[in-house]
Amino acid sequence: MATDVLDVIRTKRDGGELSDEQVRFFVEGYTAGTIADEQAAALCMAILLRDMAPDELATWTQAMIDSGERLDLSGVGRPTVDKHSTGGVGDKVSLVLAPLVAACGAAVPQLSGRGLGHTGGTLDKLEAIAGWRATLSTDEVLEQLRDVGAVICAASDTLCPADRKLYALRDVTATVEAIPLIASSIMSKKIAEGTRALVLDVKVGSGAFLPEIDRARRLAETMVALGQAHGVRTVALITDMDAPLGRAAGNGLEVAEAVEVLRGGGPDDLIEVTVALAREMVALAGLAGGGPGPGGGRPATDPAALLADGRALAVYEAMIRAQGGDPAAPLAEAPTRYVVPSPGNGYLRRLDARAVGVAVWRLGAGRSRKEDPVSPIAGAVCLRKPGDTLSTGDPVLELHLDDESRLPGALAALEGAISVGPEPPDPRPLVIERIA
Amino acid sequence: MATDVLDVIRTKRDGGELSDEQVRFFVEGYTAGTIADEQAAALCMAILLRDMAPDELATWTQAMIDSGERLDLSGVGRPTVDKHSTGGVGDKVSLVLAPLVAACGAAVPQLSGRGLGHTGGTLDKLEAIAGWRATLSTDEVLEQLRDVGAVICAASDTLCPADRKLYALRDVTATVEAIPLIASSIMSKKIAEGTRALVLDVKVGSGAFLPEIDRARRLAETMVALGQAHGVRTVALITDMDAPLGRAAGNGLEVAEAVEVLRGGGPDDLIEVTVALAREMVALAGLAGGGPGPGGGRPATDPAALLADGRALAVYEAMIRAQGGDPAAPLAEAPTRYVVPSPGNGYLRRLDARAVGVAVWRLGAGRSRKEDPVSPIAGAVCLRKPGDTLSTGDPVLELHLDDESRLPGALAALEGAISVGPEPPDPRPLVIERIA
Repeated sequence: MATDVLDVIRTKRDGGELSDEQVRFFVEGYTAGTIADEQAAALCMAILLRDMAPDELATWTQAMIDSGERLDLSGVGRPTVDKHSTGGVGDKVSLVLAPLVAACGAAVPQLSGRGLGHTGGTLDKLEAIAGWRATLSTDEVLEQLRDVGAVICAASDTLCPADRKLYALRDVTATVEAIPLIASSIMSKKIAEGTRALVLDVKVGSGAFLPEIDRARRLAETMVALGQAHGVRTVALITDMDAPLGRAAGNGLEVAEAVEVLRGGGPDDLIEVTVALAREMVALAGLAGGGPGPGGGRPATDPAALLADGRALAVYEAMIRAQGGDPAAPLAEAPTRYVVPSPGNGYLRRLDARAVGVAVWRLGAGRSRKEDPVSPIAGAVCLRKPGDTLSTGDPVLELHLDDESRLPGALAALEGAISVGPEPPDPRPLVIERIA
Repeated sequence: MATDVLDVIRTKRDGGELSDEQVRFFVEGYTAGTIADEQAAALCMAILLRDMAPDELATWTQAMIDSGERLDLSGVGRPTVDKHSTGGVGDKVSLVLAPLVAACGAAVPQLSGRGLGHTGGTLDKLEAIAGWRATLSTDEVLEQLRDVGAVICAASDTLCPADRKLYALRDVTATVEAIPLIASSIMSKKIAEGTRALVLDVKVGSGAFLPEIDRARRLAETMVALGQAHGVRTVALITDMDAPLGRAAGNGLEVAEAVEVLRGGGPDDLIEVTVALAREMVALAGLAGGGPGPGGGRPATDPAALLADGRALAVYEAMIRAQGGDPAAPLAEAPTRYVVPSPGNGYLRRLDARAVGVAVWRLGAGRSRKEDPVSPIAGAVCLRKPGDTLSTGDPVLELHLDDESRLPGALAALEGAISVGPEPPDPRPLVIERIA
């Protein structure tokens, strides 16, 4: 036994490719506890520095899936399609997208994890709604997919237990950033959840998990290939996360902004990204005449129309109610607000997404450890967006506080986050690349 | 705290150089138990794949030394000089060398660890002598160095505890082979033991820990630089370990062969390596007129003469007696012997050191885990050496057994180990390079 683990580690350490047997031996052994944390840590570091071949990674991902149960969504009576974002600041897209795509006729089984670090988690956002619960049984998930068409809930412990254990290990060993491990962690859970199609929103820019386009592209390509290898139709959009998406960052504030979009309003950038992803999902679900690529037509059911006419909102409200929430209940408001002013005159050239994300996290909207509670209230509103003109002292950010002791930490994070200058910023496309 | 460990791992992972603070934080934290095994494993793998810069490694080695006590040998009244071998098959050189160099006027403080794997440990060999004990107090070590001039004993637990913990971790995580970690493990213990000069015997060839000359040379250069950085005069010889050294492999058999050499006899290859190392040690200790380099003279006290005239043997006997052993007591003999015949006619072209080492290990002479007992009897005698002429069926190896159930495993290891052919083998120099 000991010899075999060492052989696995040595093979990867020396730049080789693990055999199917080695991959399964390792993933099964680590999940079962017969392979020690230190051995798994050495292997994760070797994978980070040596990479994995496509076949090797496909087997690894399959072994992760096989470590737990796999949902069967064939009985929901609609084509299934899901979306995963690598995480960003102000990224409340899922809250709009799941009901929107369900309104187009698909079933969206969004089984999610909790947020960690400076990017928020979708479950944390929805928990700002009184009564809403993240935990559903498998039967409840299936029933809601049939009846409502959309579910956003916590992934059960029985889904990819190998990933749960590996992720916790990677988190304390500086091996989170390994592209094959990120890709297999995301894709194993999405494949196990049973969706037949998947759209990936891979963020780039300061607020993204992988800020550089090269690494983001590699991750996107790796995940698309993995999805295809496992029979899940997969497309990735690489989208900008250099400034917060929309205006709101923070759990309750993001719910409110998502509802604004579902009511036909809301910030343009948020709408643009949401509609682009929705069109991809509708096309992958087979519900549209053509894809949005060059020369392709618009889907028969255009998601933008369903935002304008309230049909997406109706699905959202049904989805919230099905999980015990009251979509009409007012969200808790911050007792204290603090305005961050413009440091100069001219154009807002940059509003750094990572800085805003860290500030909001420090205000209490995010967690450092998975057992930490999060505030439904704490957050920030971007009163101005890059490209706006400003005078010195004009309000740029409004911080929402329910614990004033957290303000200094948040302000420290915002040091240098706002750049103002005489020239307008270069325009940045929101949807940068499409990988299929 | 957690942030700092992750920063350390990330820095090395990304190919950077650890600061002095980071190195000390890590080595101290891991020794104290505040840094987890999985974090240390990730760092060891990153070091293996990313390497360490000379300054960084010097600090790392210093931190390992500082994790325990450092012996002060200034009171022994003789110049101190030690030798370390990276380990080989039939490598009983220390048993001859320590008393021989002591007979030349030096003090040789050979504090050793136990053997692991296919290369034997010096302590295991000496324990074949009735009554001999490996464990001495610091006072006993100092007294024996003063009185006898040579001591071979177990390193105390208080010497480099960081190394003890790190070595156990590396052993189960396939990170033993990292050159900076090998170098710092060896050199921290030798520097902490208090010797002022050190000769390294770095083996290459099939039976060596690092079979390839390039890696052996890099290890030798790294260790010589580390010694010099810490004020220990250090020279390395790279010597051949493609065939077993001498004829005997196995604990008691090697003691007997060492005594043969101390009596002025024994195999030529063993004498050649021993005398070459002894001349280096005598020179480094300042006891010789000139080094053995080109143009240098022979030392005033030539070690070869002290082997011939019995003075080295007298020191050996005193050293054994000082540690409770009876140098005149007969060594236990094997109840069973098994002869491995020549597979053909012609020259013995190769007698693979690793295969012989593994066979002897499987016969019971070595251990797989540090708590395993070892046999004083089990071993092999090379009846022929590469270059000898043979006929099919001529005895080549004589296996010494005290547990016949172990024979099949040993014979399996010897599959293909003996090559016989019509041409003599290319001559291989025994001392391949000198690095100073």
